[in-house]
Amino acid sequence: MRTLYHFKLSPFSRKVRIVLSEKHLEFELINERYWERRREFLAMNPAAQVPVLTEPSIGLFSDSTAITEYLEEKYPEYPLLGKTIIERAEARRLSSWFNNKFYYEVTKYVLDEKVIKHFKGRGSPSSDSLRAARSNISYHFDYIAYLVKHRKWLAGDNFSIADISAASQISVLDYLSEVPWEHSKEVKEWYALIKSRPSFRPLLNDNLPGFTPPKHYTNLDF
Amino acid sequence: MRTLYHFKLSPFSRKVRIVLSEKHLEFELINERYWERRREFLAMNPAAQVPVLTEPSIGLFSDSTAITEYLEEKYPEYPLLGKTIIERAEARRLSSWFNNKFYYEVTKYVLDEKVIKHFKGRGSPSSDSLRAARSNISYHFDYIAYLVKHRKWLAGDNFSIADISAASQISVLDYLSEVPWEHSKEVKEWYALIKSRPSFRPLLNDNLPGFTPPKHYTNLDF
Repeated sequence: MRTLYHFKLSPFSRKVRIVLSEKHLEFELINERYWERRREFLAMNPAAQVPVLTEPSIGLFSDSTAITEYLEEKYPEYPLLGKTIIERAEARRLSSWFNNKFYYEVTKYVLDEKVIKHFKGRGSPSSDSLRAARSNISYHFDYIAYLVKHRKWLAGDNFSIADISAASQISVLDYLSEVPWEHSKEVKEWYALIKSRPSFRPLLNDNLPGFTPPKHYTNLDF
Repeated sequence: MRTLYHFKLSPFSRKVRIVLSEKHLEFELINERYWERRREFLAMNPAAQVPVLTEPSIGLFSDSTAITEYLEEKYPEYPLLGKTIIERAEARRLSSWFNNKFYYEVTKYVLDEKVIKHFKGRGSPSSDSLRAARSNISYHFDYIAYLVKHRKWLAGDNFSIADISAASQISVLDYLSEVPWEHSKEVKEWYALIKSRPSFRPLLNDNLPGFTPPKHYTNLDF
């Protein structure tokens, strides 16, 4: 059976879970507390990061972008990168925006301070880091709002890896009550569309012991 | 004419310069002081990052990974990602390792502290940041050494985007005298092979006013 080593609140694990579901590929989930650097897990991925995908009799894959590109090449039905070269360049540019820029400027602060610190027993969140995240998220939301005002989906006419990458980051922040939904009607409407996709539903049922999501987290009408 | 907006000591600009040369594609370089956030540059790339590639009558591309994937699709002669799906997954995994993990754990500290701070007039480098970079580089070099002991090139039998991504990061550190060459004979031998490629030579002739590279920087025998 195809297996994904993941952590429920890792945005990159969530991205690959959505990609697998959008491609109608079945998989089993294994929880990995990657910060504990389990020896067998390091042997699978020396970067000590989730997700890691194993495909029986094919191989083992890590790095969420490399996994996504692999799945797109291996299972081209239900494409998520776009049809033309130009569409793919735009979807990849925006996917990278959320995987890197958004992650390092927003998600990483919140996740490290609120969740990883808790599991490592390293005390309470730094208010400076959370303040930085809360300040940075505004201009990212302005950019998403700008994009969806001019396009149907983030990268153009089609739902793509750009939407999946962005929504994966935002869903983690939403679970941790760190999304300023009042900031932008456009972002909320775009996210509501993604939330209602069958590929997204399993993420809304995730429950991480010790962390209770806000009530609106699971609501399609929030 | 194809144009690349770049900064001489940006590892991501260097990566795309090498990719273009390896694919025998001609291009003009335009220096971009991206940290000044020039209005016309932000209009080209709202992420305010180099490199940005313009291809006349085709389009404008940003994000070095999206650019590399675009060039591989558009100009498949001289492939740099690998031939099989499995080879490409491995080349992308390792490319991402150096673009992300290595960059954030090593290069970014050195570049921000020694170069960007200087241009922004924000004083002298933080010794804590430089110490972190110098400590982190060791295990990355151990990993490169492990890979090239078992393989011809980083991702396997063929020179690939993995080698280019790694060498781009290392070349920036080398310019700034931050590479512990004595740490690993294997890494030095692998890097010497890359240094001797015609695609790499223009980088060795780069000169950034105010920053003089060490003598060995340009030597193929170092």
